[in-house]
Amino acid sequence: MAEIELFTPEELFEFSVRVFRHFGVPEQDAQTAATVLQAADLRGIDSHGVARLHTYFDMLTLGRIAPKPEVTIVRESRSTATVDGGNGLGLVVGPKANAIAMAKALTAGSGWVSVRNTNHFGIAGFYVLEALKHDLIGWAMTNTTKLVAPLWGAERMLGTNPIAIAFPGLEEPPIVIDMATTAAAYGKIEIARRANKPIPTGWAIDRSGASTTDPNAMIDGGAMLPLGSDRDRGGHKGYGLAVMVDVLSAVLSGANWGPFVPPFALRQEIPTRSVGKGIGHFFGALRIDAFIDTNEFKRQIDDLVRTLRKTRPAPGTTGPLIPGDPEREAEATRLREGIPLVAAVVDELRDISRQTGVPL
Amino acid sequence: MAEIELFTPEELFEFSVRVFRHFGVPEQDAQTAATVLQAADLRGIDSHGVARLHTYFDMLTLGRIAPKPEVTIVRESRSTATVDGGNGLGLVVGPKANAIAMAKALTAGSGWVSVRNTNHFGIAGFYVLEALKHDLIGWAMTNTTKLVAPLWGAERMLGTNPIAIAFPGLEEPPIVIDMATTAAAYGKIEIARRANKPIPTGWAIDRSGASTTDPNAMIDGGAMLPLGSDRDRGGHKGYGLAVMVDVLSAVLSGANWGPFVPPFALRQEIPTRSVGKGIGHFFGALRIDAFIDTNEFKRQIDDLVRTLRKTRPAPGTTGPLIPGDPEREAEATRLREGIPLVAAVVDELRDISRQTGVPL
Repeated sequence: MAEIELFTPEELFEFSVRVFRHFGVPEQDAQTAATVLQAADLRGIDSHGVARLHTYFDMLTLGRIAPKPEVTIVRESRSTATVDGGNGLGLVVGPKANAIAMAKALTAGSGWVSVRNTNHFGIAGFYVLEALKHDLIGWAMTNTTKLVAPLWGAERMLGTNPIAIAFPGLEEPPIVIDMATTAAAYGKIEIARRANKPIPTGWAIDRSGASTTDPNAMIDGGAMLPLGSDRDRGGHKGYGLAVMVDVLSAVLSGANWGPFVPPFALRQEIPTRSVGKGIGHFFGALRIDAFIDTNEFKRQIDDLVRTLRKTRPAPGTTGPLIPGDPEREAEATRLREGIPLVAAVVDELRDISRQTGVPL
Repeated sequence: MAEIELFTPEELFEFSVRVFRHFGVPEQDAQTAATVLQAADLRGIDSHGVARLHTYFDMLTLGRIAPKPEVTIVRESRSTATVDGGNGLGLVVGPKANAIAMAKALTAGSGWVSVRNTNHFGIAGFYVLEALKHDLIGWAMTNTTKLVAPLWGAERMLGTNPIAIAFPGLEEPPIVIDMATTAAAYGKIEIARRANKPIPTGWAIDRSGASTTDPNAMIDGGAMLPLGSDRDRGGHKGYGLAVMVDVLSAVLSGANWGPFVPPFALRQEIPTRSVGKGIGHFFGALRIDAFIDTNEFKRQIDDLVRTLRKTRPAPGTTGPLIPGDPEREAEATRLREGIPLVAAVVDELRDISRQTGVPL
């Protein structure tokens, strides 16, 4: 294992806020952006927290992301809106667009917002947890830079395009689904490369399009596989879900889709053409009491959660988890013990600190 | 291969209508129900067409399904409704509830309908194709009788819970996603059993919860696996999607969920308790021009479809398909050549004919 350093959530939050402020991001927006990053670090989704701060730092330094974007509604109906994010941080545009979806749900029963001209928005799970605070069922999706081959393709054409949705319980914690539409997370392939270990079959193909267990073969010109992996095991379904996320987030809003999504990091390949503005997100909110008594819904969720927990366990396991369990457990541990960062991430934060003068 | 007999779509449609009429289903409803069955047979989803007519026949004969249900809105907002299907045929209740979702989308930008007290509704794809006729993005989901184990579970707790969504093109055919949230279709396991052949790993577990390639071991007390199959390849994601469909269709409407969904066929196990009414569906519709100019959207879909078709093919394949391709090709063939039914299905239809006096 790499060397680990522990930080309190508060010090990382404060550092992130001051880094965003350094680039002229308004105080309220800087706090919002830092909150989204913190949610990832607390929930154990390490790849989406301060581990990404250096990329945001690079993009802001080069003026590729607008620190003070104008976020505007370009079209709307009672229950829908199309939002232009003004090329702002997705960490700022996302929460604003999500708030529009939630406000519409409170008046019209549901709210659906497709967002263009935005950038990477952190973990999709953050947005659906916000919705729970208002007794709304929250949905969040985003397209991302290409990494994934369609089933039977030999090259990267789609992003990892995550989907999140959450349902509140009364006494039980909420069911929180937050999943990339791929067989595995890209971060796991990077970890295997660093450890010099093979990856399971079904995660990736090499540059010729053949199945590979070599993480280098995926990273160096290969591609990730959609959820389901191959035709026999439903790879066309994960591919279909990735297309769905792309259309709702980007075609519906007028953002770039598929292989034309702009890169998140500096060294990534620039797309051959532009088919829209920035990347795209999609947010939804359903008011529970527009369908059923809210307490009755929550009681049934409690019953469902307890029923699933009582499933007879498969051999060698302790039985099924409820979606959201691992993240909630990580959060409890990290609130108590701090957020563990690997040396490479700490080095990046120190580099930001040196260049901005913000103390770590 | 089993013996095959060819029928015209018209003769199967006419037969289905008359069988439903025999039980007192009103003419318009009988035609609707037959149209949904026909869509499955035309699109090559053989398990959901007239192959199921004998089950509907059984349930109607025993009075388990109401031939003339009262379909009512029990709660609604501008963009949402909860519908009680009066224990009618899902093939009748589904289209009515879908029409409510579409009507709400036309006035409020989007429409979302959760349905309780209903029965199996045929193919989810039918409903989203209806939405396309009105330039709406249609969504359809339903829960189904338990067949699937949660990841790390050793018993059936969830249905195959399909999700469908469709997006229209301008010159290109629509993208139509219609997928069970399992690794494979149950019908494929039945086919393997009849052919005495093993099934791929990742499809199923036996009654102890261990992975199996024996179709009998799944059918006789085992369970199907969710999309992703195992922990390494994202089986928790397919499980999460199945839970999502269950909550939106059944917890939100007040239907039965999880292992308590009533059986579709006569010989299936009766659930240990009831937690709601009937099974549940969930329909959605988004008005495209509430977000973006409809023609601009369709042009971008054309571009996306053509871009995906140009993906460099993986070795041994002709390259990626577009979701909906196989079903559209089946439909073209079957409109031309007729609908092929295996001998076992023809025998069932002859049995219905004998018992009802409706000529086949």
